[in-house]
Amino acid sequence: MVTLGFLATIAVGTILLSLPIATEGARATFVEALFTATSATCVTGLVVTDTAVFWSGFGEAVIAVLIQIGGLGVMTLASLLGILLTRRLDLSSRLVAAASTRSVGLGDVRGVLTRVIKIAVVVEGICAVILVARFAITYDMPWGTALWQGAFHAISAYNNAGFSLFSDSLMGFVGDPWVSLPISFAVIVGGIGLPVIAEVARALRARRRPRRWSTHTRITLWMTAVLLVGSTLFFLAAEGDNTATMASLSPGDKILSAFTQAVMPRTAGFNSLDTSQMHHETWLGTIILMFIGAGSAGTAGGIKVTTFAVLGVVIWSELRGEPDANIFDRRIAPATQRQALTVALLGVAIIIVPTLWITATTPGISVAEILFEVTSAFTTTGLSTGITADLPWFNQLALVPLMFVGRLGPITLGAALALRSRQRLYRMPESAPIIG
Amino acid sequence: MVTLGFLATIAVGTILLSLPIATEGARATFVEALFTATSATCVTGLVVTDTAVFWSGFGEAVIAVLIQIGGLGVMTLASLLGILLTRRLDLSSRLVAAASTRSVGLGDVRGVLTRVIKIAVVVEGICAVILVARFAITYDMPWGTALWQGAFHAISAYNNAGFSLFSDSLMGFVGDPWVSLPISFAVIVGGIGLPVIAEVARALRARRRPRRWSTHTRITLWMTAVLLVGSTLFFLAAEGDNTATMASLSPGDKILSAFTQAVMPRTAGFNSLDTSQMHHETWLGTIILMFIGAGSAGTAGGIKVTTFAVLGVVIWSELRGEPDANIFDRRIAPATQRQALTVALLGVAIIIVPTLWITATTPGISVAEILFEVTSAFTTTGLSTGITADLPWFNQLALVPLMFVGRLGPITLGAALALRSRQRLYRMPESAPIIG
Ligand SMILES: [K+]
Ligand SMILES: [K+]
Repeated sequence: MVTLGFLATIAVGTILLSLPIATEGARATFVEALFTATSATCVTGLVVTDTAVFWSGFGEAVIAVLIQIGGLGVMTLASLLGILLTRRLDLSSRLVAAASTRSVGLGDVRGVLTRVIKIAVVVEGICAVILVARFAITYDMPWGTALWQGAFHAISAYNNAGFSLFSDSLMGFVGDPWVSLPISFAVIVGGIGLPVIAEVARALRARRRPRRWSTHTRITLWMTAVLLVGSTLFFLAAEGDNTATMASLSPGDKILSAFTQAVMPRTAGFNSLDTSQMHHETWLGTIILMFIGAGSAGTAGGIKVTTFAVLGVVIWSELRGEPDANIFDRRIAPATQRQALTVALLGVAIIIVPTLWITATTPGISVAEILFEVTSAFTTTGLSTGITADLPWFNQLALVPLMFVGRLGPITLGAALALRSRQRLYRMPESAPIIG
Repeated sequence: MVTLGFLATIAVGTILLSLPIATEGARATFVEALFTATSATCVTGLVVTDTAVFWSGFGEAVIAVLIQIGGLGVMTLASLLGILLTRRLDLSSRLVAAASTRSVGLGDVRGVLTRVIKIAVVVEGICAVILVARFAITYDMPWGTALWQGAFHAISAYNNAGFSLFSDSLMGFVGDPWVSLPISFAVIVGGIGLPVIAEVARALRARRRPRRWSTHTRITLWMTAVLLVGSTLFFLAAEGDNTATMASLSPGDKILSAFTQAVMPRTAGFNSLDTSQMHHETWLGTIILMFIGAGSAGTAGGIKVTTFAVLGVVIWSELRGEPDANIFDRRIAPATQRQALTVALLGVAIIIVPTLWITATTPGISVAEILFEVTSAFTTTGLSTGITADLPWFNQLALVPLMFVGRLGPITLGAALALRSRQRLYRMPESAPIIG
């Protein structure tokens, strides 16, 4: 049903974007309209046309609405699945019949939706106000333009969409903290996920100490901090000497741009440095960051930081010879371990297939660029080395289902795996084939 | 101790290859001697010099001996670890005190060594006889030359080393089944691993039906068949139209070269087609095949087909909602599942780091080529897009520990994980963070 809702949104978006009033000049082709509607609804941010130049005000508004529906829709869906999971786990551990637990009541839906919208309004509002003021005052935009630009970028940022009304994304604001930081703030909050935001808000009100927060929240916050600091340092090291990106910036601007660059692969997709000019090792690092993504039940894509952390903890425990995989004084359930493995390895498999296909059918583009673009599409990041607009139409079309699978796949897969569990009627005798 | 043995072999090899009599012309530099000795002992097959032209007869003989020691050494080591594991599992399941099980007796060592040498002599002998006859009769080589060429290539093939005394590897024999097939035969048998060879030999003698073979053997044989057929088809599809490799061949030669090409990434490293001229999608496919490798406790590298199969089965069971991961009517032990995950993901991590490093420090070489070369070094395959000889000396040196880790890492890691198991003194409360 959710899938149908997404498909319907994309269909309506495609029709609206195909209208003559949606574009400035020539009418959009079917592929252009479909690709853009999918990219907006899946909050991916990859584009085949220059958003600022190609689409009219009406077209841009359609895109903004699609982004808002897509982003908040996913957040709501994932949060409801999360509630369902928690309940079911609680119930099953109390040995209550499982039949009644498969449903989430209308009250839950209303509660989650209210909260999702409330947080979105607050965060997008803060971000928009700062942006509008900055655009109007420092950049001398007319107030009407500043308002539209501020609102659009706040929506695009909070929903981790990465669509921009500037042809060069945020590259014109590389040294401006009053643009980079509010957008980064909205991106991080949107990407951290509703369960964590809600719990932190409750905990702060109740003055509950972090030690008593849930494992999920603690993993997410820690991983967010570690990844942000780590990737800021990575980008400084990798791009600091690149004359096409960072080399000419002042030390302060270097750090600001590296931080912005560290925020965006999880999985917002704005860029304040020129992605196409980055070193290839920077691309590889970005590919890994995009694959990891941000928090569960937020607006971001990727396999999610909890999935990554669980895999890391499992490997670490295994190396230390521990029979259990523990994190923050909690033992990770074996089922959760298998889910993480499945989500991560299926993600790798889903990225490999279109990479092979596009490499085989599009001569003249390097494997690194194709892997970057496919990962960006699957993880709904939207960062681009610039090849998407140049791909043949059938390979642009190939990215459409990939964005869709990348948007709904990991969320629903994770939940489906956790919810499904067959009765074990009999067990096979155990076997331990040699590994390695 | 085993690590020391390998290091000592490499040290002696480096010294011998540094001698003036080891080369035809100018004496080998330290990096050339060390790289070649490591590549031979780890049966990797990557080269920084043209083996046929650069080394003298003495140098070639040193390389052959290093290959034989390295290949049989690894086979013996892994087989002994396998015995140790089986025993320990048997004992622990019978609740016998674990203290006495940590050691493998001298009798075991002698038994395994005898078997390892016996099989090597038989398979290398068969391969060598056919090659020598073919080289002498069809290619008009003097018998002395044919004998040396046949013996060297048989040793290099059975030990999955991939060193060749022809500057273009087997490309001169692309259409000759009497060269390609005996070499492929030796490669497959060497790569399938002693436990499987031994069990199949016993089973055939005892006329035991395949259904009663061990899970390890059945997984290995099935995966070998599936991978060989699948990758033959892949190479036919990917390279069939490539004028620089397969396009000009007759249909029969196409199939022969595709089959040879399918055998070599697991992980022998000969090539009868020009690797540097292949399409990039072929490189990607080859990278995946190299990473998987061949059978455990053989002469091949990679994470091994059983590891790959176990991960596949775990994901499949998870998708189907099965609480157990079953294959061939056997339940895969949870510990084995975690071992497979650890070996595979650590393998990915170990490949990513040098790929990033070499990309950052060697401008002008594509990421695809570097990833290919690093994977080839780690999996001890030795296939090359041709960049290794052109890398700066410090990056050639960087491949040396990588070949070493790739050779001993997965084997000893797998065994170490299986042997180590700490007492569980207390358990943390369970927790299930949201995945995906
Ligand atoms: K995005
Ligand atoms: K090899």
